[in-house]
This record gives sequence, C-alpha cells and structure tokens, in this order.
Amino acid sequence: MTNKVCVLGAGSTKYGKLNESIIEIAMSAAKDAIESAGITPKEIQAGYISNVFGVADKQVHMAPVIMSNLGISHVPGLTIESACGSGSVMFREAYANVAAGFYDCVLALGVEKVTHTGTTQSTTLFSYCSDFFYEGGNGASFPGLFASMARAYMTTHKATEEDLAHVAVKNHENGVLNPKAHVRKKITVDDVLKSPVVASPLKLLDCCPFSDGASATILCSEDFAKKSGRPYVEIIGSGRGASPAAVQGREDITTIPSTVAAARAAYKMAGLTPKDIDFAEVHDCFTIAEIIDIEDLGFFPKGKAAHAVRDGATRLNGEIPINPSGGLKSKGHPIGATGVGQVVEVFDQFTGRAGERTVKDAEIALTHNFGATGASAAVHLFRKVDRK
Amino acid sequence: MTNKVCVLGAGSTKYGKLNESIIEIAMSAAKDAIESAGITPKEIQAGYISNVFGVADKQVHMAPVIMSNLGISHVPGLTIESACGSGSVMFREAYANVAAGFYDCVLALGVEKVTHTGTTQSTTLFSYCSDFFYEGGNGASFPGLFASMARAYMTTHKATEEDLAHVAVKNHENGVLNPKAHVRKKITVDDVLKSPVVASPLKLLDCCPFSDGASATILCSEDFAKKSGRPYVEIIGSGRGASPAAVQGREDITTIPSTVAAARAAYKMAGLTPKDIDFAEVHDCFTIAEIIDIEDLGFFPKGKAAHAVRDGATRLNGEIPINPSGGLKSKGHPIGATGVGQVVEVFDQFTGRAGERTVKDAEIALTHNFGATGASAAVHLFRKVDRK
Repeated sequence: MTNKVCVLGAGSTKYGKLNESIIEIAMSAAKDAIESAGITPKEIQAGYISNVFGVADKQVHMAPVIMSNLGISHVPGLTIESACGSGSVMFREAYANVAAGFYDCVLALGVEKVTHTGTTQSTTLFSYCSDFFYEGGNGASFPGLFASMARAYMTTHKATEEDLAHVAVKNHENGVLNPKAHVRKKITVDDVLKSPVVASPLKLLDCCPFSDGASATILCSEDFAKKSGRPYVEIIGSGRGASPAAVQGREDITTIPSTVAAARAAYKMAGLTPKDIDFAEVHDCFTIAEIIDIEDLGFFPKGKAAHAVRDGATRLNGEIPINPSGGLKSKGHPIGATGVGQVVEVFDQFTGRAGERTVKDAEIALTHNFGATGASAAVHLFRKVDRK
Repeated sequence: MTNKVCVLGAGSTKYGKLNESIIEIAMSAAKDAIESAGITPKEIQAGYISNVFGVADKQVHMAPVIMSNLGISHVPGLTIESACGSGSVMFREAYANVAAGFYDCVLALGVEKVTHTGTTQSTTLFSYCSDFFYEGGNGASFPGLFASMARAYMTTHKATEEDLAHVAVKNHENGVLNPKAHVRKKITVDDVLKSPVVASPLKLLDCCPFSDGASATILCSEDFAKKSGRPYVEIIGSGRGASPAAVQGREDITTIPSTVAAARAAYKMAGLTPKDIDFAEVHDCFTIAEIIDIEDLGFFPKGKAAHAVRDGATRLNGEIPINPSGGLKSKGHPIGATGVGQVVEVFDQFTGRAGERTVKDAEIALTHNFGATGASAAVHLFRKVDRK
C-alpha cells in the first residue's frame, strides 16, 4: 500500500551552547545532510522542520527561511511541534508523505535554541509542554514530574538511586566517543549520587542538559536512493502513540502508554519483535525515563531494566546497546532536534561514520522519542542496506 | 492513486477577544465540529492542530491536551505551524494522511489566543513570522511590509487608496451577516480613508484585527462520509506553494509566488480553472492582500482586481463572491485558526448553515490562506455534495 522510504543523508551540528542564530544552526545541519546524500538542494521537493520554541530566538515560520537560504525558495515546508518528541513526530510525517508517493525526496530537519534564555526561563518555557492547567501551572516542572515517576518505579520494583545512576554513567561513556555530544565527560556512579538534588530522587547528573542544536536527514523513495549509488538506510517501521497529557491521568506511572503503542505499531509494520533489534536510541531526558523506555519497548520485562543496566546489558558491547550516541543525557537535548538526531545516529552507525562507538554487526535499529512525560511518542525501525 | 476525502463536520468559536484559556477555546470548536459530523470522539483516529503562539497562553504540545479533554487520550496528534497560513497547511497535511489511507477520520483544528498580550506584544510576536534577520529584526512589521506591497501595486496599476478601501467595506458588509465575526460593523469608504494611518498607504481599517478563536473540521474518507448519512463536502483539489521568505528577495512584489503555485497545483488536481469557482475565502490580512490574491488566484487579470472590487464583482451577489464570511478583515484573524475557519465557511455554505450570507447556487468553492507576506501558502478546492 505504501512505498519504501530510505534515509539517504544525515547531518548534525554539535549539540551544546551555540552562539549562532537558530537559522544559522539549522542551515549548518541542512548543508551537512544534503552533502552526505550527494544531492543538490534543487532535488528537495518539500521541507519538514521540527521546532518548539523558535519564539525564544525570534524566528518561527522557519521552513520558508531555511528553504530561501538553501536557494530553493519555491519549495514548500512546514514546522511540526510535539514538545520534546517533535523531531520523531515530524520525521514520521515526512516519512508518511514519501511513503504515500507525494514526494520523492524531502528534507526533515529539527532545530532548537534555548540556552541563551537561561536555565530558569528554559524551565518555564518547557513547562508549557506539560498539561499546563494541571501540571506546569501548579509548579510541576519536568524534573518534578519525572521524580514522581522515579519514586513510583523505585517503590514498585525495588530499584535504587544507584541503579538510575548507572544509566547516566553508561550514556556518558558513549557520549565521550561522540564528537558532536554536548557533555563529553566520563562520570562515575558516585559523581551522580553526589551531584546536587534537583527533584528527589533525581539529581543533577540524572538530568539531561538544555541544549542548542540541529539535526537533519534526507528522506527519499527507494528508487531515488538506489539511483543515487550512495549508502542509505531503509525505514522499515513507524508508529505513533499517545498518553493522557497529564501524568495524574494515568493508571500506572511506571510505564508510558504512548511508547508501548508506538512500539507495537512499528514492530507490527516491520514484522519484527524487540529481540530483532541490534541497538536503540531512546528518550533518556532523565535516567528514569531510559529505564521505563527499555521496558516499554520490550527489551526487558517490567521491573527488570534497572538491574539489567547495572549488569551492563545496555552498554556498547552489551546484549542490547542503548543510546550509543550518548543519548539525551550526554549527547544533549535540543528538543526540536532530538528525534532527528537519533536517526542521524542510526545513519552514522549503518554507513560507517560512527567511529569508536560503532555497534558491532548491527543491522536493525530502533529510535524512540517522546514529548513531555510521554504524552506523545513515535518509534521508528531501520534496516542497514548492504550495497555490494 | 489517492482516496477521496470529505469534510463531514465543522465548527468555530466566535472570533474576537476571548477570555477562556486556549484549550477551552479549542475544545469549544472541537465539540461543535464533532457534533456537526454526528460522530463520537472515539471515531477520531488522529488529531491535527494548527497554532503559532501557544507560548503566549503557556500551552504548546496541545494535541495530547485536547485529545485527553475529548476522552481519547490514546489518539496521537501533532501541531503544525506555518505562521498565518498554519491552518491551511495543517489542513492539507490532515487531508494528505486521509487521502493516503493512513486514517479514515481525523480532527483538524486551528486555534490561537494572543489578544491578552496587547497590541504591541502581538505585533512583536507576529514579526517573528517574517524573515527576522532581514525584516522583523530591522523593524519591518507586517503592516510596513504590506504597505510596501500596496505602494508598489498602486504605482504599477494606477490603483488608489479608495480602491483598497472598497475591499474593507465589502468584507464588513459580509461580516455583519456572520454571527461568529470579530468586527460586525458596517463601514464606508470614507470611514476607511479617515481612519488612523498605520503604515501609509494602509490605515487602521485596511488592517485585519488581532483575534482569538478556534475552528475545527472533521475530515474522513468518502466511504466514512457516505455511511454517516450526513451532509458533507468533498475536497477536490489541494496545493501548496512557497515564496522567498523576505519580501526583498522577490522580483515583483505585486504578486505572491506561493499563491500562484498553490492555486496552479489545486486547479490541476481538480481539473478546474478559476472560472469554475463559485466563491472563495481568501487571505485578506490587509486590503491590498485581497487585491493581490484574487489576481494570483486567476479570478481577475493582473492589475484589474482593484477596479473589479470597486465595481462590486466580489460582493455576495457579484460574479465571484470573495470572503462571504467577512474574511480576516471582519470575521477576524486568529492566525492558527484562520485557514481552518475558511473551510468551516465552505462547509456552512454548502450544508445550509450560512444564513443570510449564503452564496446562491454555489457548488465549487476555493480557500486560500498564506503565512507572513506569503512565504507559504495553501489552496484547497471543495465541491458541494448533493444528498438526495
């Protein structure tokens, strides 16, 4: 019913505190993606942008500006927002349009710039992504909401703060190997436990940073990819999901319904199970999120992920490497770009561009990205294409 | 290649200065659309939201909140932004997903709330929709940019300020008949000419107001519509277009390239020409915009629209009624909702809900909505479906 869609090019800026304008940041990633695809901008038929707080850098309506700067001002575009899940939700929309045959080649680019507003203003802005009437408006910021989830998880499954810390340690271990990562610094469990409390039981090193950055991909039909003669990655599954917007509306806060639904849809589409996945980029805005994610995605039984992480199962050489890029925790979290950045990592892994953090013999990868406390989520599955 | 898509339900809040929260405004339109479609929320499979400045009312990531309030928190959604063209660009995306067979029934809802920020802050926020590096950042607000276009048009085509005023007079004449309109007040050419200068040659009554409001539609497959036994409208054409983001990048500022491209694509898809259109809702953020629009859409030869408007050709009983709803000028312009509101007007016209402003014997309608100074645009064509 739908056509095969491929990722033909990918590029990211460094994630971190960037001084360029949001458009300059976006352009840098766009140009890298276009170059890596071996195409010219003229081959792009539509632009899909993901961004949440363009207002913070005084630029919304970004697609026309980006297209104009690429010299293709006649090419239509749009911006998609789904809080911290914007990148993957936008990627899915770009994918769907190519799959339906509306376009042969599109640019899918995520970008965010917030660090110049400072931590307090960024936290305030981000709280607008929650169900503000029930959550943000009553002082519940995301660290607080995830702290509730962490407490519930720890109580239900006898997990400890040390278990959570292992997620951060592992992701920093990977991030050190990623030249584009925001926080390239090895940390220990002790560092995490001794870092300042943000919202108990979460401490500073349980939290991902506020980051600026952009990531871009070129999506195209299989025909287009084959004709290019370039390396590419095939998209074999795509799913979206949703949860009650406010955490208080959920029956069980040790699981995220949108992740479960999105993963189920993506696995079904690809005819795969969690056991078929060789590595995954997942949404670890807080350490507890990664623990919950990898259970919801089916990699570990409910309540078992914390111990699996401690045992090294999710390390680069473990049974299911999670966040080889360093994840949101170390690579960084420019919220509009994050979901696209995960696809960039898959592209880099499958086309020999991941250097020392390459996952050995990987052929199938999963990306998982959600918005807010998981009110929205999307999961994508990718297959390495051998070009002999 | 693609399936037929229909509009089965539609609803709008009153446009104007509203005191409810942005979510309450959205919910009101959503419920009206759902009721008019004769469906229950459970039949909705996805939510497409359009909005630009949710930040101004402290709520982005609106789809999950709206879906949760509708009691369908498991239904995925997203927000699409394309400045003042957000509504139509979002509508096209919802349309494309149903046309591709991904969904049978979706909610397409636009909403905006800005009036509480005041005129100065609204003007500042809106300037972020321009190419801020070249335009907004140098003090060029939208009244100023459209004033340049007006001056160029008037010089090239020997049009007068009085000609422009006729657009406002006609749209207010229609808006008086629309109970949902923001400014329901009959005005004269003299009123317009004597109103305070905003950016010469544009005066206050050449400009549409800042409005709050929401408009919603239910889109579905033809099968779904037929089975419902309810009145519906068929979407027969859809096109998008883009222009250089900054006005200074355009060769001729008396035409908007995105409109021309979007219209061409929509006409081609429907196999129709401008002569087949019985009425149109077009983007009249300023009077000059409507003049340019109706030439770019092919209703009048270049340079002839101003005189045609003066001669009454675009009045409710004219040869091609333009903006029977009152348009942005009188009905109002809640920027995220505007493009959807145009579709609501078509639905109302074609299903006997337009009262005194009903266009006689109309069977084919066009909607046209753009972002900023026309950097992005979408055009849709609709056919009245007789249910005998």
